Amino acid sequence: GDHQETVPVEGVAGGGTAYGWSDTGVNDPRPLRGAIDPMKVSSLELLNVWCMPNSANVGPQDMPRELEPISLLAARNERESIQIAIRPKVSWGGSGIAGTVQVQCTDLCSPCGARLVVGQSLTLRRVVPVLGVPDALVPLDMPVCQLNLFPGETTVIWISVDVPSEQTPGHYEGEIIISATKSEAESTSQSLTKVEKHQLYRELRDCLDVVEPLKGRPSEEVVERVKSATSSLRRVLLSPSFADFFSDYGPIDMMEEDAVSSLSIRLKISLTVWDFVLPVTPSVPAVIGISDTVIEDRFGVEHGTNEWFELLDQHFKWLLQYRISPYFCRWGNGMRVLTYTSPWPADHPKSDEYFSDPRLAAYAVPNGPIVPCGDTAKDYLRREVEILRTKNHWKKAYFYLWDEPLNIEQYNGIRSMASEIHAYAPDARILTTYYCGPSDAPLASNNFEAFLKVPEFLRPHTQIYCTSEWVIGNREDLAKDIIAEIQTENGEEWWTYVCLGPGDPHPNWHLGMRGTQHRAVMWRVWKEGGTGFLYWGANCYEKATVPSAEIKFRRGLPPGDGVLFYPGQVFSSSQQPVASLRLERLLSGLQDIEYLKLYASRFGRDESLNLLEKTGMYQGPERYTSEHTPIDIMRGEVYRTCRS
Amino acid sequence: GDHQETVPVEGVAGGGTAYGWSDTGVNDPRPLRGAIDPMKVSSLELLNVWCMPNSANVGPQDMPRELEPISLLAARNERESIQIAIRPKVSWGGSGIAGTVQVQCTDLCSPCGARLVVGQSLTLRRVVPVLGVPDALVPLDMPVCQLNLFPGETTVIWISVDVPSEQTPGHYEGEIIISATKSEAESTSQSLTKVEKHQLYRELRDCLDVVEPLKGRPSEEVVERVKSATSSLRRVLLSPSFADFFSDYGPIDMMEEDAVSSLSIRLKISLTVWDFVLPVTPSVPAVIGISDTVIEDRFGVEHGTNEWFELLDQHFKWLLQYRISPYFCRWGNGMRVLTYTSPWPADHPKSDEYFSDPRLAAYAVPNGPIVPCGDTAKDYLRREVEILRTKNHWKKAYFYLWDEPLNIEQYNGIRSMASEIHAYAPDARILTTYYCGPSDAPLASNNFEAFLKVPEFLRPHTQIYCTSEWVIGNREDLAKDIIAEIQTENGEEWWTYVCLGPGDPHPNWHLGMRGTQHRAVMWRVWKEGGTGFLYWGANCYEKATVPSAEIKFRRGLPPGDGVLFYPGQVFSSSQQPVASLRLERLLSGLQDIEYLKLYASRFGRDESLNLLEKTGMYQGPERYTSEHTPIDIMRGEVYRTCRS
Repeated sequence: GDHQETVPVEGVAGGGTAYGWSDTGVNDPRPLRGAIDPMKVSSLELLNVWCMPNSANVGPQDMPRELEPISLLAARNERESIQIAIRPKVSWGGSGIAGTVQVQCTDLCSPCGARLVVGQSLTLRRVVPVLGVPDALVPLDMPVCQLNLFPGETTVIWISVDVPSEQTPGHYEGEIIISATKSEAESTSQSLTKVEKHQLYRELRDCLDVVEPLKGRPSEEVVERVKSATSSLRRVLLSPSFADFFSDYGPIDMMEEDAVSSLSIRLKISLTVWDFVLPVTPSVPAVIGISDTVIEDRFGVEHGTNEWFELLDQHFKWLLQYRISPYFCRWGNGMRVLTYTSPWPADHPKSDEYFSDPRLAAYAVPNGPIVPCGDTAKDYLRREVEILRTKNHWKKAYFYLWDEPLNIEQYNGIRSMASEIHAYAPDARILTTYYCGPSDAPLASNNFEAFLKVPEFLRPHTQIYCTSEWVIGNREDLAKDIIAEIQTENGEEWWTYVCLGPGDPHPNWHLGMRGTQHRAVMWRVWKEGGTGFLYWGANCYEKATVPSAEIKFRRGLPPGDGVLFYPGQVFSSSQQPVASLRLERLLSGLQDIEYLKLYASRFGRDESLNLLEKTGMYQGPERYTSEHTPIDIMRGEVYRTCRS
Repeated sequence: GDHQETVPVEGVAGGGTAYGWSDTGVNDPRPLRGAIDPMKVSSLELLNVWCMPNSANVGPQDMPRELEPISLLAARNERESIQIAIRPKVSWGGSGIAGTVQVQCTDLCSPCGARLVVGQSLTLRRVVPVLGVPDALVPLDMPVCQLNLFPGETTVIWISVDVPSEQTPGHYEGEIIISATKSEAESTSQSLTKVEKHQLYRELRDCLDVVEPLKGRPSEEVVERVKSATSSLRRVLLSPSFADFFSDYGPIDMMEEDAVSSLSIRLKISLTVWDFVLPVTPSVPAVIGISDTVIEDRFGVEHGTNEWFELLDQHFKWLLQYRISPYFCRWGNGMRVLTYTSPWPADHPKSDEYFSDPRLAAYAVPNGPIVPCGDTAKDYLRREVEILRTKNHWKKAYFYLWDEPLNIEQYNGIRSMASEIHAYAPDARILTTYYCGPSDAPLASNNFEAFLKVPEFLRPHTQIYCTSEWVIGNREDLAKDIIAEIQTENGEEWWTYVCLGPGDPHPNWHLGMRGTQHRAVMWRVWKEGGTGFLYWGANCYEKATVPSAEIKFRRGLPPGDGVLFYPGQVFSSSQQPVASLRLERLLSGLQDIEYLKLYASRFGRDESLNLLEKTGMYQGPERYTSEHTPIDIMRGEVYRTCRS
């Protein structure tokens, strides 16, 4: 006994405290020893790879889960996304990194030969933390990219499938192939540095100088010179720079460079595309503000210049992909706002192009010139309205004049502006955001009652009554009271908005909230019965005068509030904006509304609410799922019951 | 009025919510536009750089502060450290990173020509987060290194100065030079890839083939062949691969490659070395355990093989730099431990080398063979003791037999093992760790009284009573009660230990605790009057069988508990262990004890405690500084009053 005990084993028995018990990592019986060559070991020995739904916030500290096959459902004209998390089990990459992986993506193909093409319908982005929270989606090269992994850190890839409206319904399959590979530093050690290259250049030039002026020289000298050049050339070819090629005079085997092999991890993606086509024009307009001032400052463009028009155009087009209706905005005195969806005058062809785009559900018409043009505001406004009211797209137009009026003077300001507009077009829609009545002339004895009476007070100077969700709190029944005050029969609408409130646990788009909490903003709209949504804004960073300047959130606002995308320059040399996870979830929420609307069109609105309830997806602003499964169940149920 | 208001300015007036107000970033009047060339812009426009004391935990989310000059004080044979934080103001690096910086370090020089040499006395390490908390110190290349910065992330460099014992006291100055530079990817775009290189190689070989067998050929053919080769060579030289060099036939200006210039940020380091030499042998032995089992598993070496001895040797030597006395340990049944500072038998020259190293303050003697050797445990123990007790270093020896006995059987086990040892050497020191008396035979009516009576109960079978700080809680006065039970006049000692307890806010080495909390572990030892300290252990990671396997902390333990360093392989291709911040703070704490001891030797122990109190550095386990300043004040006061 004594003898044995002198060489005891740490573990179950002793102070090892569970030593080896949670050993979920490397289970392979063949241990990896010494320097690890990723080209000779199964990537599964080097990497944990697992999938997560798009509503999960997966950060650097997330721990591995089981790898399960990916099975997605998407309608046509829908985007569906999934996340793949990668965490190194070991390090093989040398300095500073755990290792490099190559990620490759195939087209998704159906048995009948239809395809969803990588780089077009299938895109990969890297999830980058902002303030430590996964949020920015930085595009990756397609169809192959390399990623550096860091020790003890989980790296996350966001995969999106955009199904075109005309895509053949059916079952599609493809693969994501993940391969541990040599780091770039290692591969470039095989290349020539600038210094080596310059050395080589000089030697070759010297060779040339020796043999070049041969014409007319005595043949003895020619022979000598050629000999000298030949031996220089031979020396160059035998130099260490070309050592890789000595052994083999034949073609180099470049296969080694190809990381994809039987050692790779192959992740099957299976996608069912069903016949439902999401309407091109979103059923619920979501109007989202873009600060033109922020664009001007950050990109250093002057208001009204060609560059300025180009940048606004880029922002408009990019945001339109997200089923939202952008408006540009600059702030005036008080909370007066100058809002406009097109920076061009109404008679400019670009305005017509913008407004008649079927993806645009609503557009803001400015109540004065955006770029000074010599006209008075009055004249400008009259002409704009006169042009627009003759168009088919006029039904999408709205005027957003003032943000959150607080007193009689401000309410009167809206009345007077609205009167002017209605004088030119009685059917013009004025949108007013508010969360209370005028404080200096209470409309009722308590705040909520006063808030309820705003439509009565503002009528007919507002058609879209846009209220803060913060007012409702967790008392969803109040939505009914609000709607009761809206004369929908006269074309009035009730819209809602979120901003710095409501806070957790209510749905909003703040950084650090749960993924389902982001997505639930739109579930709430559906349940409460609002017919539109407003958000200010998508790019409200702290002031900066360099496109690639670090993003800072504005002081006094919850992180992420007012920011739905980032300038691409911050994350790469790309000019394209970088979406936030929250913008993707806004899109998902808008898509969920189309599913629910389809279901309601078959079985009635009440049944659609019942579906939200019975799946556990959304029951109220404090009772909604934190898991993804209920979302898939809802979507699956709509698919099962509504497919043709 | 109307006209003006149509082009309002976002900001103070309106919904911009403090837009531009916290603009502490880019203040430069010349805005950076378009692609940023780091070689043409002052690095200060691209980077925030600031310094932080070594007791600060500076993570990726830390925000910039004012850059202040670095002024350090260090004794001889002391290590003093400072942190430099770098955060990009903008991105210039292209894909995935904000940009690359080059960090360069000069020697520290005194006016009389003495030097602290970069790479030897001056080292740079990168602070790498573990579980999101800054902890691992990964060595950087010296004297120049490149670092990638990430958007919105603070990168931290840990600079240590190790002052040799024989260093000339005086004032030293040097510089850290930080330069934004082109990313490696960009610079390598100027180099030849393997494919281009191979192409070039083939073309040159073809040239050679054409001209090589010229001997004996008709001169016409020679001329033709040389012509052909010459034109091939000319084509090669004009190829895009060498395009960089076309413009200039003279020597290339390689200065561009040198990132250090007037654009760099130069950070002055000023260091006062004073004449005090920290004793080579630490005044308070800190014995720190290393799991041999973990080494065996992770590095795949078999117990007792040459590789095994080499690895243990490497660990011993590396840890000895930290003023600590390592012991190796493996666990037996119950909480029996086999502890040994030298893996070799006592008569092996390496054991003598280990034990007589003046930096080693205490060593563990095993009570049986570590590697089976044919001897019985009894015989082996007797021979070890007989050899060691004749040596000068025998006074450093201790026997650590059992960890935290809990019942009479375990206490009896210690008694019987100790009796055997004392039979061979009556002056042998047995160390016993405990936090309570035997549960099945209470020594008193309450737990703390029973704990107090352990020395009386164990005597004479233990000389070093090593108790958990957890027992004391915040009642520092209990330390006096413990000491009252120790017969110091008979050579008995009171040591302490921390492990999973005590928890926050008490001093310990858990990840996520404040830096001063880590350092205060040793302040506490000094204040309470313990004469030694024990910690298990330095490398108690979860089981892994690959050197570079991800570090996992053991289940059920607070993160960082039992882990003071990491295998270098996890972070780079280096074999050298990577220190944790917590290990550096253990060292700093041990150095603080030497300062306090020096002060006590001049003014008495009470005055040293008074100094701790009046600086606000440490007053008790729940009352110690969270700021660094009191530490500098204490050190400055010792310097002021004790320098010669």
